[in-house]
Amino acid sequence: MNPYCLPDSLLEQLLHEDSPYGDATSFALGLGAHQGELHFAARQAMTLCASEDAQRMAQMLGLHIDQPARASGARLVAGEPILTVSGAADALHRLWKPAQTLMEYLSGIASAVSALVDAARAVSPDIGVACTRKTFPGGKVACIKAVLAGGAVPHRLSVSETLLLFAEHRTFLPDASPEAMLMALRSWSERKTVVEVADPAEARRWIDAGAEVIQLEKCPPAQLAEVVAYARQRAAPPLIAAAGGVHAGNAADYARAGAGLLVSSAPYHAAPRDVAVSMRARCA
Amino acid sequence: MNPYCLPDSLLEQLLHEDSPYGDATSFALGLGAHQGELHFAARQAMTLCASEDAQRMAQMLGLHIDQPARASGARLVAGEPILTVSGAADALHRLWKPAQTLMEYLSGIASAVSALVDAARAVSPDIGVACTRKTFPGGKVACIKAVLAGGAVPHRLSVSETLLLFAEHRTFLPDASPEAMLMALRSWSERKTVVEVADPAEARRWIDAGAEVIQLEKCPPAQLAEVVAYARQRAAPPLIAAAGGVHAGNAADYARAGAGLLVSSAPYHAAPRDVAVSMRARCA
Amino acid sequence: MNPYCLPDSLLEQLLHEDSPYGDATSFALGLGAHQGELHFAARQAMTLCASEDAQRMAQMLGLHIDQPARASGARLVAGEPILTVSGAADALHRLWKPAQTLMEYLSGIASAVSALVDAARAVSPDIGVACTRKTFPGGKVACIKAVLAGGAVPHRLSVSETLLLFAEHRTFLPDASPEAMLMALRSWSERKTVVEVADPAEARRWIDAGAEVIQLEKCPPAQLAEVVAYARQRAAPPLIAAAGGVHAGNAADYARAGAGLLVSSAPYHAAPRDVAVSMRARCA
Amino acid sequence: MNPYCLPDSLLEQLLHEDSPYGDATSFALGLGAHQGELHFAARQAMTLCASEDAQRMAQMLGLHIDQPARASGARLVAGEPILTVSGAADALHRLWKPAQTLMEYLSGIASAVSALVDAARAVSPDIGVACTRKTFPGGKVACIKAVLAGGAVPHRLSVSETLLLFAEHRTFLPDASPEAMLMALRSWSERKTVVEVADPAEARRWIDAGAEVIQLEKCPPAQLAEVVAYARQRAAPPLIAAAGGVHAGNAADYARAGAGLLVSSAPYHAAPRDVAVSMRARCA
Amino acid sequence: MNPYCLPDSLLEQLLHEDSPYGDATSFALGLGAHQGELHFAARQAMTLCASEDAQRMAQMLGLHIDQPARASGARLVAGEPILTVSGAADALHRLWKPAQTLMEYLSGIASAVSALVDAARAVSPDIGVACTRKTFPGGKVACIKAVLAGGAVPHRLSVSETLLLFAEHRTFLPDASPEAMLMALRSWSERKTVVEVADPAEARRWIDAGAEVIQLEKCPPAQLAEVVAYARQRAAPPLIAAAGGVHAGNAADYARAGAGLLVSSAPYHAAPRDVAVSMRARCA
Amino acid sequence: MNPYCLPDSLLEQLLHEDSPYGDATSFALGLGAHQGELHFAARQAMTLCASEDAQRMAQMLGLHIDQPARASGARLVAGEPILTVSGAADALHRLWKPAQTLMEYLSGIASAVSALVDAARAVSPDIGVACTRKTFPGGKVACIKAVLAGGAVPHRLSVSETLLLFAEHRTFLPDASPEAMLMALRSWSERKTVVEVADPAEARRWIDAGAEVIQLEKCPPAQLAEVVAYARQRAAPPLIAAAGGVHAGNAADYARAGAGLLVSSAPYHAAPRDVAVSMRARCA
Repeated sequence: MNPYCLPDSLLEQLLHEDSPYGDATSFALGLGAHQGELHFAARQAMTLCASEDAQRMAQMLGLHIDQPARASGARLVAGEPILTVSGAADALHRLWKPAQTLMEYLSGIASAVSALVDAARAVSPDIGVACTRKTFPGGKVACIKAVLAGGAVPHRLSVSETLLLFAEHRTFLPDASPEAMLMALRSWSERKTVVEVADPAEARRWIDAGAEVIQLEKCPPAQLAEVVAYARQRAAPPLIAAAGGVHAGNAADYARAGAGLLVSSAPYHAAPRDVAVSMRARCA
Repeated sequence: MNPYCLPDSLLEQLLHEDSPYGDATSFALGLGAHQGELHFAARQAMTLCASEDAQRMAQMLGLHIDQPARASGARLVAGEPILTVSGAADALHRLWKPAQTLMEYLSGIASAVSALVDAARAVSPDIGVACTRKTFPGGKVACIKAVLAGGAVPHRLSVSETLLLFAEHRTFLPDASPEAMLMALRSWSERKTVVEVADPAEARRWIDAGAEVIQLEKCPPAQLAEVVAYARQRAAPPLIAAAGGVHAGNAADYARAGAGLLVSSAPYHAAPRDVAVSMRARCA
Repeated sequence: MNPYCLPDSLLEQLLHEDSPYGDATSFALGLGAHQGELHFAARQAMTLCASEDAQRMAQMLGLHIDQPARASGARLVAGEPILTVSGAADALHRLWKPAQTLMEYLSGIASAVSALVDAARAVSPDIGVACTRKTFPGGKVACIKAVLAGGAVPHRLSVSETLLLFAEHRTFLPDASPEAMLMALRSWSERKTVVEVADPAEARRWIDAGAEVIQLEKCPPAQLAEVVAYARQRAAPPLIAAAGGVHAGNAADYARAGAGLLVSSAPYHAAPRDVAVSMRARCA
Repeated sequence: MNPYCLPDSLLEQLLHEDSPYGDATSFALGLGAHQGELHFAARQAMTLCASEDAQRMAQMLGLHIDQPARASGARLVAGEPILTVSGAADALHRLWKPAQTLMEYLSGIASAVSALVDAARAVSPDIGVACTRKTFPGGKVACIKAVLAGGAVPHRLSVSETLLLFAEHRTFLPDASPEAMLMALRSWSERKTVVEVADPAEARRWIDAGAEVIQLEKCPPAQLAEVVAYARQRAAPPLIAAAGGVHAGNAADYARAGAGLLVSSAPYHAAPRDVAVSMRARCA
Repeated sequence: MNPYCLPDSLLEQLLHEDSPYGDATSFALGLGAHQGELHFAARQAMTLCASEDAQRMAQMLGLHIDQPARASGARLVAGEPILTVSGAADALHRLWKPAQTLMEYLSGIASAVSALVDAARAVSPDIGVACTRKTFPGGKVACIKAVLAGGAVPHRLSVSETLLLFAEHRTFLPDASPEAMLMALRSWSERKTVVEVADPAEARRWIDAGAEVIQLEKCPPAQLAEVVAYARQRAAPPLIAAAGGVHAGNAADYARAGAGLLVSSAPYHAAPRDVAVSMRARCA
Repeated sequence: MNPYCLPDSLLEQLLHEDSPYGDATSFALGLGAHQGELHFAARQAMTLCASEDAQRMAQMLGLHIDQPARASGARLVAGEPILTVSGAADALHRLWKPAQTLMEYLSGIASAVSALVDAARAVSPDIGVACTRKTFPGGKVACIKAVLAGGAVPHRLSVSETLLLFAEHRTFLPDASPEAMLMALRSWSERKTVVEVADPAEARRWIDAGAEVIQLEKCPPAQLAEVVAYARQRAAPPLIAAAGGVHAGNAADYARAGAGLLVSSAPYHAAPRDVAVSMRARCA
């Protein structure tokens, strides 16, 4: 559960947005001449995320890594250390908030993802859990890292790579049959044909037509169970996915109803997890 | 309450992250040859944000603006229309989610900001309300727009422009008096000298030394009231700010206690507000 | 077959790389004071690509569109007009080569894609044709547009969104069974499990294990036919894809052998198609 | 023959376009916990290019360099090793194709450049060989590196720095004499005055007027020889360049005809040269 | 006086603008095979700036640091060494001018800032000295570094973070009283209310209304002294700032007149300070 | 004398650096609801530059162009209008300084260029005048526009496109003759071979060897005259350029001494020319 590192250009942006011209307070006090250390630790239990990126930001500022970062995806209890760096006091002040904020937001998402995954898998160990592409504007590459760190997968990363037939697509083709539409989609080879539907009747119609994934939008678990039962009658049953309003609180219900996949945006709205920061002076 | 527009380069990033190579489903179905319209409306009451930016994204995709966007900062009731655009169906599909997601997140923040401002000003009409720089990684320029749309102001946009003396700065200067540190900060002309303190005793020490703003971190309202009383004894009383754990639920208490400024990160973690989207075909 | 437009930031890069400080020759001659027109036409038969982008570049330079661009994907005979623009002579000179070069390269790729698709579909009308991600370094978004314009689809746009199990992945898990590996991949919900194999024996092993797509790398059509026959015995037969060395010259053979999908990089190496350019002066 | 390195921002783009969110297959299989090595070698004879850049990409992914890259410009026989790196298996999978593709395309161009240079210099050892600015859209800085690695020079890198008088410039100045136009160009100090002409008659006219370089566009070698003979009668004979349709197959003919410079776009369309990749596991 | 380092992306831009495809002269001569060293020293006395950035550019080009850079802010006499690097001769040629030019411009500004600060503080040791935001287009982050290196502070880094009420703002609110306008500004919590005025009468009006900073635009020192006297009658006297036409030649006069802050753009227009460069060959 | 427009991405950067989150003062006062106009005029005589770019920035902010910009290169007397725009008062405040600053700096350079050109051409009407590549860090594309607007040409835009043999190149080849080095340079076809020399003796040596341009660095006019006389004895005399310390004050001397080209960095250090700005309210 150790996902990719964020690109340097994003980390540079985060540092320079927060202190484009250095830390004025440090500069006014002449802290550049002092040495110190900065220590990050989990203030709450959390599934950690972006710790490697915090470490990389420290390196960008010329700081020394005293204790390398714990890995993204690690489950920490309150108080566990994450990372210790040292160096010039003004650089420590530049690192502080951007690194803390990055870890807090992403660990918040990763922790919520973990909780959702845990709730679903307690009932159905092989169920898929995916998070949507409704990531914070400007924060996509960060959010998806947190999804992976939390143990879920991204649902679809862009609409350019995967197929998902919405009612909004079908509205333009009022005379086309489901079978004809699925045939058109199959030209986009190797992608599964995913169809979003609003109720079991619609689901049955598309199962009959041969859709490979049926995504039930905002359907109660009982209706989903009905669709699952219908699907299982087929030789190659489609995957039944629950989407819209899925969260850690109802994940078990959907799992129990037989969903093969849960699709959720809820973890993106989780509160950040607190990362404690302590700074102290060192003799040079 | 009509703040700045987001830069084109960010809007281009949002569009291209979501559909770097177009909408595969639309392409497979040949929707480029169809015309339609896309309509955005408030599904819940909200303080709107980023509607102008959604409109600009539509223009970037070559779409026509049928009903121009309501302005950011407008307070909408459930059902109120926001924006209607029309054009090629594949472009409508590319616009849909990035525009909706942008408005949902930022209207969520703006609405939470409004609620915080309203709660505080019901008690103290002239109180300042500021949101911190702990914005979502990569989403700073978007988040600050939502702060302004919601009726608050940004606390400090970067550490390069404003002065805020933390205990973490002071740890490097154990032998310096508050007076000496404030004198050093005054060299950074025209900025107020802001000092973060943890309790009333510390606050009094810095008030005596002449700090212009005292920021009380995680102090209960009763303690803050004490500090306010102390400060008012001075000819030019400093501004007393409450920070750390301030939210719409306790804003009135802090206002009543005499805070001149509330500083909060809470609105950034608000859930998005729902924006309803409807698409329909049009004869060419 | 009308794909997405290239992002403005790329078009700006193309213009400014070629004339970062204007056209020196035009400037030295004072051509900025003259008016003229620039006309693009197909010198050879071609599947056109990037004509909309050439038009957009003209607009970026302040030129007027006299005859709007024919659409990407159009099949042109030699001599057919593509686009006519007019305006200041120095701007026409800045547009000329970047627009021509862009259309020539991408029409070259699109035409080769068309030829490959035509060859395959003459035999097997529903066969899928996909082009790989081995696009020219720096030219990905341009190359994929040409793939779509030519009537094929992209194979996989990034390794972050799709699953493709190479022998190079399996080398790290010498003790894992195919079944176990496929189960691990299925956690990445909704993506088809694609396995690259080198020969029919390996193919059979993975078909038995339940892979959804078998990609035969550099196998002759006869071997592929064998695998297709084996696959068809299953209730839900996997898709059999031919990859490695597939081109317009052997596409029919692979189609005849029963491949469901052809995967090729060959069109990226096609020679550009010639776009004729004529410029002439106009009275102001 | 050891040209510049590509900028880090381009290499980051290449890596992140191909795996913006890591390698899904590696992640699903948990390969991040495994160690391995990746070895690149020439599968065909080639003039190598971009090997230093592949090495730099490996470093960006945190990999170790076991065998440093052979230098760009080296002439390799089939089977010669290029580069060996080692580290986490998921990072090896992220490096693989972008590094291979970069080296294959650029070594393809560099090899074609070498062949053109060799063909021309076998006849005329001091002849100049230049490649045009018609590089792949988005790939300019990469293509020019390959030109240098192959032993040629870039013709003109932008129209902002060099002078090249086309018929398309002259069409706006129907009443200006060649002498007047060359005088205007000389104001752009220190650049040679280059004039593109279509036939010997035109060439003679511009030689008489004092052009410093005559670029013959799509003229057969025999006509070029005529122009060379005419030029040699002058005290300071202009350089006679052959352009348009020049390639390794006719380079010797143009050299024999007396061309001082060959200008070609042909190497850009060369097929990539194959780079063999092998990956294997290592004990941690 | 050791300010922040410039971002890598800017340094990459400076290097690649100057030699996007390497140094042609070095390449033509085959200097890549030679080793040498490059030494930078102060040709004139100067307040040094950007030396760390020159060193970083050397590292970006793969060069070795023989003598690390003196720190920005150091006051050098003519002849003092700044930095010595060594490595491949073609890389030394790529580094030479961009590094020299960067240090010359920024040391020119830093030296002019120092002179201004010295002149003002000789009279008034605690006076503030700030430089405006009228930095060279595209050079803001570089210019502000030079301001800090020279011992002054930036006046306002953007109009988004600070408040400065110009007559041009007031023209839109002809009926609003100064008191009302200041109250509106106070909503932007924690920022000082700064008002630009043109003469003492206007200054008095805004002092009475409670402005925290009065910025006198282009007022002679005698008028400023009048305003200072008026201000000192108040319990909490506002800061009186002199702006418009302030430079090292009249700084003492304004200081003597009682200005608390000098605001100047003059140092940005200072001539660069000469940095001597010497290069020599080394045995490999 | 109407050069290229600056790229949109640079203009966006200039606007967003100066007001990344809008104009706080305008926002606090609610100026977004007011309409007004902004008028730019020459306060001093000047050769105008960047007026089209100021107009483009106004368009980026959604403003209306009332009086289109006078063209870059125009010679204005004090008081002449440049551009008038109108629209929302907060947008006018965002445009103000970035547009003014851009025009002031670039018109300062363009005016200094004009003065240098005028001084030289009064004596020698056909003399070339070029400005060096020592442009302000980050401001290259802006500075070069000003050079063209002022009537000079850029000397060399990068070291990648032109050849200039410095002593610093020669230091690596102590045993190579001038003839051998020039022969190596001639492989970089079509570029003139330019050699920088320090005195007449060195100049003669390189003239004898056949250099096409001799650049005399910091030589007095009398020495340059000597070199010119020597050069004129040759059938094809090289161009003699004066560089190093050339400015408007000594340009006539160098012209009289027979220099064919003056190379100067001096105009880049010219003071900005003042652009007057007036803003006023309009009824909506």
